[in-house]
Amino acid sequence: MYIGIDIGGTTVKMGIVNKKGEIFSKISFSTKKSPNEVVLDIKQNIDNLLTKNKLSLKKIKGIGVGCPGTIDSKNGIIYFSCNLGWNNVDFKDMFLKETGYKGEFSIFNDARVATIAEAKFGAGKGVNNFILLTIGTGVGAGIVINKKLYEGALGMAGEIGHVTLVKDGLNCSCGRKGCIEAYASATALINQAKEEMKNNKNSLLYNFDEINGKIIFECAKQNDKTANLIVEKYVEYLGESILSILNVFRPDKLVLAGGISTAGAFLIDKLNKYVQERFYGHKGAIPTDIVQSTLNDNAGIIGAAALNFD
Amino acid sequence: MYIGIDIGGTTVKMGIVNKKGEIFSKISFSTKKSPNEVVLDIKQNIDNLLTKNKLSLKKIKGIGVGCPGTIDSKNGIIYFSCNLGWNNVDFKDMFLKETGYKGEFSIFNDARVATIAEAKFGAGKGVNNFILLTIGTGVGAGIVINKKLYEGALGMAGEIGHVTLVKDGLNCSCGRKGCIEAYASATALINQAKEEMKNNKNSLLYNFDEINGKIIFECAKQNDKTANLIVEKYVEYLGESILSILNVFRPDKLVLAGGISTAGAFLIDKLNKYVQERFYGHKGAIPTDIVQSTLNDNAGIIGAAALNFD
Repeated sequence: MYIGIDIGGTTVKMGIVNKKGEIFSKISFSTKKSPNEVVLDIKQNIDNLLTKNKLSLKKIKGIGVGCPGTIDSKNGIIYFSCNLGWNNVDFKDMFLKETGYKGEFSIFNDARVATIAEAKFGAGKGVNNFILLTIGTGVGAGIVINKKLYEGALGMAGEIGHVTLVKDGLNCSCGRKGCIEAYASATALINQAKEEMKNNKNSLLYNFDEINGKIIFECAKQNDKTANLIVEKYVEYLGESILSILNVFRPDKLVLAGGISTAGAFLIDKLNKYVQERFYGHKGAIPTDIVQSTLNDNAGIIGAAALNFD
Repeated sequence: MYIGIDIGGTTVKMGIVNKKGEIFSKISFSTKKSPNEVVLDIKQNIDNLLTKNKLSLKKIKGIGVGCPGTIDSKNGIIYFSCNLGWNNVDFKDMFLKETGYKGEFSIFNDARVATIAEAKFGAGKGVNNFILLTIGTGVGAGIVINKKLYEGALGMAGEIGHVTLVKDGLNCSCGRKGCIEAYASATALINQAKEEMKNNKNSLLYNFDEINGKIIFECAKQNDKTANLIVEKYVEYLGESILSILNVFRPDKLVLAGGISTAGAFLIDKLNKYVQERFYGHKGAIPTDIVQSTLNDNAGIIGAAALNFD
């Protein structure tokens, strides 16, 4: 048995996972502010999970963690996580000291962890080369080449969200300007929606106190004109970003994950169309298929657990 | 013995190469307009090379070709080459019929061919993961992962020149807008220079009937104010492009090739500085070293020959 822990900006999800990638018990709780508090909460919830499932810590072959940011996976150090506001956190050391755990421990960037899960058990199973793009508060990614996660130096490859899309454009959370994340994240979509809503006070979107990605897509599906204009513009930003990725990688698939991907075929059909019409050298090229993640919310837990599969 | 052929927009270069990557006889001629004329010229020049070196075609174990554009390397078809103005050319078939050659024949994108050469015999020798960026009329690239060229679907991966840098920006040769090629190629640099020259009529650049990349860098090295402003702006475009690549790949090296790379340390030091100051998650990240190609002009011939090394 393995434990997978998915640390998000607002919620920590964790579960007990077997080697088939099946979660048979899970739990979640709010993400506290400091790494210390989060480690203590994780410790407490591991105890709860184990008690509930009549297991002892000794039966757990490995504990894996997925976490946003740049992470030195070899040494277990979180260098820089703008979403969590953490810098230079020796998470592995902190975790092992607090829990006294003696088994395998791994920590890796959350998008790469989700990519491992999709490669082993999800939309990327059996696929040679694919890119996972996870779109939520930020834009994360993982790169699979020859069925293996491509890690790059210190396991930090895949910062596709910080590829420049509009040089000198909007401010990005990373401190630079014009990154894909500043135009194609769910956060960016909401900002774009608020701008567009100023042009039409009759939109269904005004029925909600607070809009989010889900609401925007739901209203667009109901033929709300403003929502459709917002989605159209967003497809241009996200489609353009995906096009850049595909021109570089020519992967077999691009797997869309994260909150935005739950818009499903409504969004994915538009993206496939946008990309197929604009592919470089498209006359002879095979346009990569854009598909939806199949593990969804569970990818983080499963992938984190899978970090310690042999 | 092997023959390597490097088809460029203006010149075809070819040579006889041994398995150590040494060229011991080479020849070059102007690129004619149609694929047929080019094949006939190549045939004639193979004969010349062989006669000069007292070799027969039977002694040649393989003939390899590097060519700009999207190329289906498996079937030897050039799908789309904007630089040559060729579309859907069954080059392999045409070549074999015309020459009657019975040995191994390969054709591949020119930037990827140069990448193979640098990986085997040049700046990328022994390096696990590197990106070659070749900057001339256009911007080409090759991706090496785990010491092997990453090909992607149909061998077409690596179109880094057609990653969007400025959404809805300048027209690109590929028919789209705002690609890296439209801002960071030698062609783009020359256009940027012509614009900047309008602001200062005292520049050394006015001493030349026709400016090119080499002249711009030479004038900048001589402290010409206008040339330095041009280089500064160009470093921003190229640096921003490289930054995007490094955030995605975190390679061990980035090898700069093509005409622009001959500016040497003067340019490369500026690029390293630009990138190191802006790397994503730079506090803990290892900035990739940007280095100059070591095979230069010969990379195309050597890499094309190496396509048929076992």
